[in-house]
Order: sequence, then C-alpha cells, then structure tokens
Amino acid sequence: MPSYEINRLNEAAAAEARARWDAVAKPLHSLGRLEDMIAQIAGIRGTANVVLAPRCALVFCADHGVVAEGVTQTGQEVTALVARSIAAGSANVNLMARTARADVFAVDMGMAEEAGHPAVIRRRIAPGTRNMALGPAMTPAQAEQALQAGIDLVGAMSARGYRLIATGEMGIGNTTASAALCCALLGMTPDEAVGRGAGLSDDGLLRKRGAVRRALEANRPDPADLTGVLAGLGGFEIAAMAGAFLGGMAYRVPVVIDGVISAAAALIAARMCPEARGFMLASHMSREPAAARIMAELRLAPVIHADMALGEGTGAVALMPLLDAALSVYGGTHTFDGLGMAAYVPQGGAK
Amino acid sequence: MPSYEINRLNEAAAAEARARWDAVAKPLHSLGRLEDMIAQIAGIRGTANVVLAPRCALVFCADHGVVAEGVTQTGQEVTALVARSIAAGSANVNLMARTARADVFAVDMGMAEEAGHPAVIRRRIAPGTRNMALGPAMTPAQAEQALQAGIDLVGAMSARGYRLIATGEMGIGNTTASAALCCALLGMTPDEAVGRGAGLSDDGLLRKRGAVRRALEANRPDPADLTGVLAGLGGFEIAAMAGAFLGGMAYRVPVVIDGVISAAAALIAARMCPEARGFMLASHMSREPAAARIMAELRLAPVIHADMALGEGTGAVALMPLLDAALSVYGGTHTFDGLGMAAYVPQGGAK
Repeated sequence: MPSYEINRLNEAAAAEARARWDAVAKPLHSLGRLEDMIAQIAGIRGTANVVLAPRCALVFCADHGVVAEGVTQTGQEVTALVARSIAAGSANVNLMARTARADVFAVDMGMAEEAGHPAVIRRRIAPGTRNMALGPAMTPAQAEQALQAGIDLVGAMSARGYRLIATGEMGIGNTTASAALCCALLGMTPDEAVGRGAGLSDDGLLRKRGAVRRALEANRPDPADLTGVLAGLGGFEIAAMAGAFLGGMAYRVPVVIDGVISAAAALIAARMCPEARGFMLASHMSREPAAARIMAELRLAPVIHADMALGEGTGAVALMPLLDAALSVYGGTHTFDGLGMAAYVPQGGAK
Repeated sequence: MPSYEINRLNEAAAAEARARWDAVAKPLHSLGRLEDMIAQIAGIRGTANVVLAPRCALVFCADHGVVAEGVTQTGQEVTALVARSIAAGSANVNLMARTARADVFAVDMGMAEEAGHPAVIRRRIAPGTRNMALGPAMTPAQAEQALQAGIDLVGAMSARGYRLIATGEMGIGNTTASAALCCALLGMTPDEAVGRGAGLSDDGLLRKRGAVRRALEANRPDPADLTGVLAGLGGFEIAAMAGAFLGGMAYRVPVVIDGVISAAAALIAARMCPEARGFMLASHMSREPAAARIMAELRLAPVIHADMALGEGTGAVALMPLLDAALSVYGGTHTFDGLGMAAYVPQGGAK
C-alpha cells in the first residue's frame, strides 16, 4: 500500500484568514469562492500569510491499451509527442503557464514511446497499460507504484519550494479510462459517463461506450476496493494524479484539480482518504458529463465555466491568476480601518 | 438623443480567428468559450491579430436618492470615499487590476460629495439622482447626457490606445436601481429582482423591495421607452455604463460586463441598439438574482462563477488574465503543422 501522512486543515489559520477577509473594505464575502479558496489555502499551509508562488504544474503522461478498441481519433504516438513539447516548453499548457508564472513538468508515468527529452521526469511503470476491455489495465502493485510516485513527486516539489501545484495529464485514450472509473465509482452507466473526448464521431462514441461496457464486464470492479478499481480501469497517469492529491494532504500543499480525468483521480484520493479533500482546489468545470457528478461528491465548486476540455493541466493553471487577483485584495491595505470606516457586520438573516 | 455609430462584427475576421484556433494542436474548440471570446474580439476589431493590451477599467461612480428609503447599510459618503481610493490607486479594483496589468479610472458621474482627487474624471450631472420611489430619478435629458458621457469616454479611451475596456461601478444604493430596472425591462417582480446587495438584513430586504415597488408605481415605466425607463429608475453611473457599451460598438472596442448593475446597463444598451450586443464580453455570473436572466437575454455566458458581488469592476478585470491565457495559445506556435501532425477534423455528429 502507498504510504503517506494523513493531515487535516488547520482551522485556526483558516478562521484567521476569514477574519482578515472581513476587515477588507468591501461587502462581506463579496469575492465569494475566491475568498473561500484563500482561506482554505491558509488552512492547508497552517498560516494566514498565504503565498501562491512559486507554483508549478505536474503533467502526468501515460498510454492506454484500450486504444486498441478504436476509441480515439489519434494514435498513441501523440502522447509522447505532446510530452516532448511540454518538456521543451512549447505545448499549450506551457504557453498558459507562462502567463500564470508557473513552471511545468512532464512526467512519464508509462508512455508507449519514450519522449526522448531530458527534461521529462521518468517514472515509467510500463509502456502503457493493457487493454481494460479484456482484463485489468494494470496489476495492483503497478497501481500502488503509480500512486506512490504521485505522492512522492508532490513531496519533492514541496521540498523544492513550490507552494501551489496544478495537476494535468496527457494520454491518448484516457477519457475512456476516466469514464470507466466514473461508472465503477459513481454508478453511472457508460451512456451517461462517456463523452466525445477530443471530438469523437458518432461511431467512435458507440465504440467508446462499448469499450467501457466490456471493461466493466471484464473487471467487475468493487467500489470498496479502490486499488482494484484503479488497477482494473485506470491509467498510470490517473493513479499518479490520485497520488498527487494524497501528497497534497501529506505535504500540506494545495493541489489543483484540472478537468474530468484529474477529477476522477481526485475522487479516488478522497475515497481512499477523506481528509485529502480539504487539500484540493477545483478550477474549471469540464464539459465531460461525469465532471459535475464528481464535483458534487467532492463538495467542490469550480469557478471557471468556460466549456474547456483541453487537458494538460490548462484549466488548473488558468485558476492561478484568479487566485492571484484575490490574494492581492486579501493582502492589500484597503481595509475599513485604513479608510476610517466601520466594518460591515453580518446582520440577522443576511448571508 | 445620444449619437453614436452603429457597427457590426466583422465576420470574416472572426472566421479567420476560428480557423487559426483550429490549427492549434489541441482538441477542436477545447478552450471553449475562451476561444469564442478571442474570435469575437477579432470580429470587433476587424482583424484576427488580436491584442488585449493596453487595457483599462472605467469605474463609474454616482449616488442614488433612493437611499432615503433606508435600502442600504452605509451612507452616501462611502461612494466618494471609494471613488477617491480608486483614483488614488488603492481600492480593491486597483489591486486586482494591477495583477491583470490594467489601468483604472474613476469617473464621477454625479456623486453626492465630490471625491476631491485630481485623478477622478469629472462628468458630474448632479449631486446624485432624486428618490425614484417618489418620482423619476433624473430627467430624460440627464439620462441622455449620461449615456453620451459613457459613449464619449470609450471613444476617448480608444483614442488613447486602450484595446479592452472593463466596466465597473460604485454607488451606494445602485443595486436597488438595477433591480427596479430589471423589473421594468424583464417583467421580474420586486421579490424576484431584489437581492441582499452588500449583505442586507431581513428588514433591509423588505425596505428595499418596498422601495422598488413604490418606484415602479411612481414611474410606471414603459419598456418601449428606454430613455424613460433609465430616467425613471436608473442612475447616472448606470446610464453611463449603458453608454459605454454603445461606445464599444461605435469605436469597435470590446467592453466587459462586470456584475448585475453593469449587466443591467448592458441590457439597456442592447435594447437600444441590438448590434451593441456583439461588442460585449461577459465576465462573471453575479449572485444577484437578475444576473442570470439578463445573461440569457443577451445570450452571453459568463466564464467566472465564483459567487462574486464586489462591484468596482473587479469581476470584469478578473476576466483579463483568462483572456491572456487563451491568447497565449491562440498566438502561440504549438500548431499541428509545426508538430508534423494532421489536424483534427470535425467529424459527423461531433461538435
């Protein structure tokens, strides 16, 4: 089993952060969920002196045997191609991370081809998973190894000074895996859980639903056996992201959920250890059908609703400037005291 | 009547922008509404070479006679206090605008007190509106003067080189005015349209609803007479914002809607001139009840859902880094061509 420390939010620090918000000269709680997230980060770090930098995105890359079922528009070689672009600093997430002043790391969790770029962090477990439509995608030991890799990477990034970590993924076929996980964990049907991923045709959609159905039949997942579910239907990058969320709790670093695949990983982490939920931040609401279901269970409300579905951690990175904007108000001097004004007081019946 | 040029989006430029998006190495339309907004800006400017800087926020400030009805928690002196802070660069919107690299201008459209700061742009129409619960808040001539001021200010900012303009407002009592406008224009009841503004008590909420009801009775607004509706129930800053949206169309500059008050102004502008709608960008979904109704009529979908209700243009400014992030991908070199990959093609039945 993967090993990690279980931590809880520091409620005193979160309360101090909320009190500091209430001293800012503005209507109470008028930055809404952005205030909540800054207070949550205070609780994560154990101090109301919130910092959001330096920060980074960890983009976990892996391949999926289920592509043999014809569920994708492109081949597995694209996974390594994009991982190489990420390592070279030229992929979409790098461009967006530059505007958000975040570093980006590509992690090879098990791609079919190696990226062949020295900046890729190598945590290869195998050259892709096996085809889950025929049996388990990986062994339980591999699932645990991937989980531990995610936990340890967050620990390593925390030790390097990173104070906010975005999750991201690249893996041709991984929306099929995440849909299967959502069926197993949330009781969704393949028809409900399977979206069009990167713009699948009608035929492709039918093949994808069929592949998920066969994967569920072949693996008969038991939601109480989370490692078993992950091994049967997951991917190396999904397991590593689940580990990253556990690592966020273990090392007290806020870890940002990206789209539906990252959210499925967050769900697994929260099921494995409910305390981990408090260390997660939601960024955007993916247009994949399972996303809203997962967010509801995690009791998280993504603040970006832009119908994004790019992956690579782009949505998680997009949250960072919004947090920066909130922090500028939180850490600013525009207070009731400074203006010589009486503070707003919560009134009877008011929120 | 205010005078302005009626323009339409340049569809060729917008189409060129969409084609450029489709050449980026990523799933089609996977930056969702952010892609749509960049293409819209291309249509506004008439070129697919989209720029988002320099940019600014215009924060229109004015006072409201309806505060005599006891609808607010704070007095009118706070309007000038905050306007002064904005001009001095220390208010909430300034802090957030700094992270978004936007300039901020406070515009005195008619505050009860003068701000007494040289950086405030003076367009004072009167020291606050009259109490709309007793009769028209302003004369039709004043409403037209405020509209023209907003149009002309956008023209002046465009001439100064600003390429993206956020709207914002400060005016104690102005959520009462915007609620009354929503009743008049959308057929909402005072109970539906009136929210708690800056954290109103139960008693305050009843007073506010009563004031809106009396204002509707005193003014009997005819939704076909938009200047009359604005004069009866509006505010100088609301009329100026409506003008700013017309100015966005006239001078081909994208103008960003902030919260519900700004949205009410956008609604008036769109009713006055339907072409103006194409030059508006939505930023965040306010928690005030009328916001969703207005966005539906404007067929706009705000991308930030953070339960914000601060005003001052803070939500509109928060959109800017999201647009920057999208533009970095749009203007980047991570293309299918550059990667030696075939582009995704829209498939039958896929979006």
